[in-house]
Amino acid sequence: MNTELRFIGRIETPYETLDACPKNIRPDGPPCALVLEPDYAEYLTGLEVGQEILVLYWFEDVDRSLALQRRFGAPEGPLLGTFALRSPNRPNPIGIGTLTIQGIDGNRIEIRGMDCLNGTMLLDIKPAMGPDKLASIPPVGS
Amino acid sequence: MNTELRFIGRIETPYETLDACPKNIRPDGPPCALVLEPDYAEYLTGLEVGQEILVLYWFEDVDRSLALQRRFGAPEGPLLGTFALRSPNRPNPIGIGTLTIQGIDGNRIEIRGMDCLNGTMLLDIKPAMGPDKLASIPPVGS
Repeated sequence: MNTELRFIGRIETPYETLDACPKNIRPDGPPCALVLEPDYAEYLTGLEVGQEILVLYWFEDVDRSLALQRRFGAPEGPLLGTFALRSPNRPNPIGIGTLTIQGIDGNRIEIRGMDCLNGTMLLDIKPAMGPDKLASIPPVGS
Repeated sequence: MNTELRFIGRIETPYETLDACPKNIRPDGPPCALVLEPDYAEYLTGLEVGQEILVLYWFEDVDRSLALQRRFGAPEGPLLGTFALRSPNRPNPIGIGTLTIQGIDGNRIEIRGMDCLNGTMLLDIKPAMGPDKLASIPPVGS
């Protein structure tokens, strides 16, 4: 079985240092983009402007061995298990965000308000649906 | 940089064949469990019964090279890009579900209604929050 990750592209954001990165995705944040490797452009067929997508990406330079850690911004808070937190320091440092497609041009998807470093490696794009999708979406079938 | 996936445990479901697997997670589905490797039990500290979690897992025996495919159950439908579909056949076959914790006992989390094979490899558990967290939207197709 092949469980090797394939990097499908990079995420363009305004953030060049971890300190500059916001701690959460913001729908009204600055313009960002998902830039796929050219071979993957065809994989976007059928995605549309305005559609909500789940974006999976890989956090670099993290500690993958922490069982317990404190919540970000709570240096005096309790130690919590890594799986009870959204910290990027985790055994498999996969980030997940729900974003709205602002534009698509070939292998490039425009989005807003990502929370990661410029150049972050992209793992997957999926349509948000069912339990991933926000409450404000129109009913299924509309 | 180490981008190797670490398998943190397995998912117990009633499904031993792909044909038996439901196509979506169902909150009212049969009992299932996330069984972590013993070394990861401490990573669950702070998770609580009733809490919603995102579960990431790895689909085995899939085709990772499909640019275009048809929607499941639509053999006459249009060819769509893999990133416009939730198909497990994708470059990085990572499944994502939002589940409610029904019980926790050591390294074991009881949940309901997973959609994957018994023994599926577990990659991550995160608290659902913000745009991941759901109101009680039924799965598409339910």
